[in-house]
Amino acid sequence: MVTRDMVIRDVGPRDGLQSERPVGADRRAALAVSLAEAGVAEIEAASFVSPKAVPAMADGGAVIGALPDRADVTWWALVPNARGAELALDAGVTNITVTISASEGYSRKNVGIGSDEAVDSLARIAAVVADRASLDVVVSCSFGSPFGDVADATPVGAIVERTLETMPGARVTLADTTGTATPRRISHVLSTVAPLDELDIGLHLHDTRGTALANALAAIDLGVVRFDTATGGLGGSPFAPGAGGNLATEDLVLMLHDLGYRTGIDLDAILTIAHQLPALIEHDVPSRVSSAGPLPDFASATPRSSA
Amino acid sequence: MVTRDMVIRDVGPRDGLQSERPVGADRRAALAVSLAEAGVAEIEAASFVSPKAVPAMADGGAVIGALPDRADVTWWALVPNARGAELALDAGVTNITVTISASEGYSRKNVGIGSDEAVDSLARIAAVVADRASLDVVVSCSFGSPFGDVADATPVGAIVERTLETMPGARVTLADTTGTATPRRISHVLSTVAPLDELDIGLHLHDTRGTALANALAAIDLGVVRFDTATGGLGGSPFAPGAGGNLATEDLVLMLHDLGYRTGIDLDAILTIAHQLPALIEHDVPSRVSSAGPLPDFASATPRSSA
Repeated sequence: MVTRDMVIRDVGPRDGLQSERPVGADRRAALAVSLAEAGVAEIEAASFVSPKAVPAMADGGAVIGALPDRADVTWWALVPNARGAELALDAGVTNITVTISASEGYSRKNVGIGSDEAVDSLARIAAVVADRASLDVVVSCSFGSPFGDVADATPVGAIVERTLETMPGARVTLADTTGTATPRRISHVLSTVAPLDELDIGLHLHDTRGTALANALAAIDLGVVRFDTATGGLGGSPFAPGAGGNLATEDLVLMLHDLGYRTGIDLDAILTIAHQLPALIEHDVPSRVSSAGPLPDFASATPRSSA
Repeated sequence: MVTRDMVIRDVGPRDGLQSERPVGADRRAALAVSLAEAGVAEIEAASFVSPKAVPAMADGGAVIGALPDRADVTWWALVPNARGAELALDAGVTNITVTISASEGYSRKNVGIGSDEAVDSLARIAAVVADRASLDVVVSCSFGSPFGDVADATPVGAIVERTLETMPGARVTLADTTGTATPRRISHVLSTVAPLDELDIGLHLHDTRGTALANALAAIDLGVVRFDTATGGLGGSPFAPGAGGNLATEDLVLMLHDLGYRTGIDLDAILTIAHQLPALIEHDVPSRVSSAGPLPDFASATPRSSA
């Protein structure tokens, strides 16, 4: 049994690859499996969206079908609506991510509906899923929006509240979709939305302005123990102007391990995967640690948990 | 009079350009002047090293001669030895940076002498300078060394102690020359070296592993108010394998302003300078904020000082 102080969900096979040139389901599944073998506790492996809308995510069922049953890994798949939830459940998915945006403008651009309709859509997904899968609601644009309609924590607070009324058992992941979070904004939103000890809140950080690791540090100091990342720093939303990639798994793991936290992840194995990504996506990855390599030892980190 | 809570020294014209293809003294001086006009309080504009060793830093006297007298700017020049100090003083320099390495291996590779000889060299510089200039001792490899000989805070503590015996009036800047610092290592070294309220300690951060901004955040929480940066994230040591550029001025300023600190710096003016740098150095700059642009407003930052 691996003891973890911090839970990292690698979203590279889904969020990371969705705006790349499409690669086959077998290669996406192989990436997900390699992440599992590197010790990643949670992996977002597929989505059940229209292949016309997002060609790179076609054949989600084939990806899921190629994943091994592992007691040490939680596999996730994203669904956009009730029809997607049905497809995911049929494919054997037991952990479902859904997204809803704190930004009305982003919601309309990304999924073509406003916030009220998006909450209604969540309710229909919840009805389909019932108790057949656990749910993670990812709230996009939680720390600002390129459409200028998220100027403080009010919209995300309202969306989280309505979401939890609709899906009372869901966990919540606040997403910095376009990299506008800062350590102060992280603190402002987390303190506004809910006390962390009452709600299972994770963060999904993008590194558009190089602030993602500093944002993670600020969140850790506030008690957050769950982060979405992508090996290599893959990603970038096709619908958000200027969106950078996800916080790189290796960049966060390096800092967490140095701080004395346990993630269950083998950093060297992650770096090996990161070094193979350019062959998959046909361009370099932005992660800094995958270029520079791991750290030399320096003093000793004090373990953060007595467990 | 500009009120500042944080003092940023832009070292781009020196540390940033020293390993680039050489550009003329006039263009380096123009960069320094543009930084001053953007509100940067301190600027390292030149060095008085051998043009054979560092061709890009030739004609340091011409750079200094082209700088205007400004009451709101402290101009700095780096000197490698007593001869360089004489040249700098002759050129009218009144603020001198010297470097000494916490890593014996880096010292031998970078300047060809060991730590004992380096301390002796500092004593000779101090004797030449006397009271004609203020001194800033930059301790390289303070948070680790590519040569494996800085494994905790002991070497930097010893070098700082010997340095302050040699140059009792100097201020000290701890440099993460090769980007091996982490928030924990920053805390470990700062708490070992000296209480911040007894010593004027600044940080000089490089972003080799993407940790520079998180390191700055950790240092700010510990009371550090002085940072070296370079607009565009210019830099990288020719003597340190894998060294990344300096923490970008615009990346730090964005976070500081968002946190409510005053720097005196006009971020938009810095971004304008950053956008002109590729024409100067003939390649892109690594700064993320110069690519992504400033942040939309989000809630209101509380000013950090009552002044």
